[in-house]
Amino acid sequence: MIELERPIRFEEVDAARIVFFARFLNFAHEAMEHFFAGLDGGYSRLIMERNVGLPAVDVAMQFFAPARYGDTLRIETTTARLGNRSATLRYRMSHRASGERLAEVRHTVVTSNLLEMRSIEMPSDVREIFSSHLEPDTRAGDEPRR
Amino acid sequence: MIELERPIRFEEVDAARIVFFARFLNFAHEAMEHFFAGLDGGYSRLIMERNVGLPAVDVAMQFFAPARYGDTLRIETTTARLGNRSATLRYRMSHRASGERLAEVRHTVVTSNLLEMRSIEMPSDVREIFSSHLEPDTRAGDEPRR
Amino acid sequence: MIELERPIRFEEVDAARIVFFARFLNFAHEAMEHFFAGLDGGYSRLIMERNVGLPAVDVAMQFFAPARYGDTLRIETTTARLGNRSATLRYRMSHRASGERLAEVRHTVVTSNLLEMRSIEMPSDVREIFSSHLEPDTRAGDEPRR
Amino acid sequence: MIELERPIRFEEVDAARIVFFARFLNFAHEAMEHFFAGLDGGYSRLIMERNVGLPAVDVAMQFFAPARYGDTLRIETTTARLGNRSATLRYRMSHRASGERLAEVRHTVVTSNLLEMRSIEMPSDVREIFSSHLEPDTRAGDEPRR
Repeated sequence: MIELERPIRFEEVDAARIVFFARFLNFAHEAMEHFFAGLDGGYSRLIMERNVGLPAVDVAMQFFAPARYGDTLRIETTTARLGNRSATLRYRMSHRASGERLAEVRHTVVTSNLLEMRSIEMPSDVREIFSSHLEPDTRAGDEPRR
Repeated sequence: MIELERPIRFEEVDAARIVFFARFLNFAHEAMEHFFAGLDGGYSRLIMERNVGLPAVDVAMQFFAPARYGDTLRIETTTARLGNRSATLRYRMSHRASGERLAEVRHTVVTSNLLEMRSIEMPSDVREIFSSHLEPDTRAGDEPRR
Repeated sequence: MIELERPIRFEEVDAARIVFFARFLNFAHEAMEHFFAGLDGGYSRLIMERNVGLPAVDVAMQFFAPARYGDTLRIETTTARLGNRSATLRYRMSHRASGERLAEVRHTVVTSNLLEMRSIEMPSDVREIFSSHLEPDTRAGDEPRR
Repeated sequence: MIELERPIRFEEVDAARIVFFARFLNFAHEAMEHFFAGLDGGYSRLIMERNVGLPAVDVAMQFFAPARYGDTLRIETTTARLGNRSATLRYRMSHRASGERLAEVRHTVVTSNLLEMRSIEMPSDVREIFSSHLEPDTRAGDEPRR
């Protein structure tokens, strides 16, 4: 599990004064970039120099409580499923101060060549990071379990 | 079904040069605001004057093909489920020029008093719009079918 | 002068419940894309196929009154200055319903080859659009007047 | 001077593959929130509990070089001018690794009561932070020098 803490920013709320629901996917991606910080050159080198990326094919989100400006999020990222070319990341988002559960996001990605935009075998360094954070009760398998 | 067409904008892509996955939730919300344009004063009066909103409790997204700068999206919005306090919107997003399917989003919302942030009975004008665009094979029912 | 009207969207406000100041630059760019809609293939083909763009070198913004969710903006775009390689766009933003002046943005751009990220002579179709919307009292000149 | 370092994120670039120009105002605001971290409860309590904010009245930006995904920004924030009710923040943004100057933003704000959206005398704790980071050659004065 990789943890990220980040404050809600001033412009991340909406006209209902709670964090805009789409923002939780921005937070998820930020947590994914942090998850892959251990790659040589980080996630950005994977994208910019190796032309390999992890486009989403499926997202499932649940919202439990609203977040507001002034809150700090804790995001715990794990690998919920690991296949040959795809994987599912799980982000558990909570309110740092109270521990209250705010949202959960499952994010299924496919390792892709960005120039040709087609799936490829997962590079070994990417797989290693996914493997290191596999949830304890998860068995490998290429098919999403929904 | 309510339809919205909107061009992809310059800043909606990411470092992989495709539309950033979170943006599809912004598009979904934009389509929802358009869906409720028939309310007196539109969705904005519901929020700003009546203090009623539709916070998300559940989102499911599937991505079929990437969108790029220069593409125009067609978004078809329907009511996939209608309950007493909640409803599920479905957004079918396609590439206007080719008709290619790009993404589908299901978005479950709960009618809420925004001042107290608790669920309320759905106001009749909101219900009427949901009802008018109910998918043909959908039966009413308060429980999400996932 | 090219005019664009667009409603403020739900997520464009901030924790102070007014449109977040950076958003006015998003609106400016949206108005610029609209300004160049007459190019063959629009602004997106300029960027994506011709690899020509208009990166900003200077921006000046003034804010006169806040905008809120529910407001619709009117944006009037003109060419405040036209040089050989650069130009300054002026966006006058007002509240459509009341006519109240909300913001003004001056945006100086340099015609650039995006692959090499260096300035180039302005293509004639780009120049033609700038010329067509030159402010009446503006004389051509390559130097910004600040 | 208060310093903030932050990596460019995946979605902060545009179709020209450089950081979208409006994002630099998001970075500026992020730096301003960091600048005021020393307030009791931070900038968020000022906004959310004290209903005091710092809406922008004037922004001036200069862009010297593009930023890209993978770069990390260094933002140095100072007080360029301090008046009774208003102040001008200056953000010098550079590329952390090379030290190259990327952008400079001057951001004039007016201390405001957010409920009535009118200017107020600057609270002493807000003034203290502005004062602590006043540029050496700056004399106090209520009028912007442009």
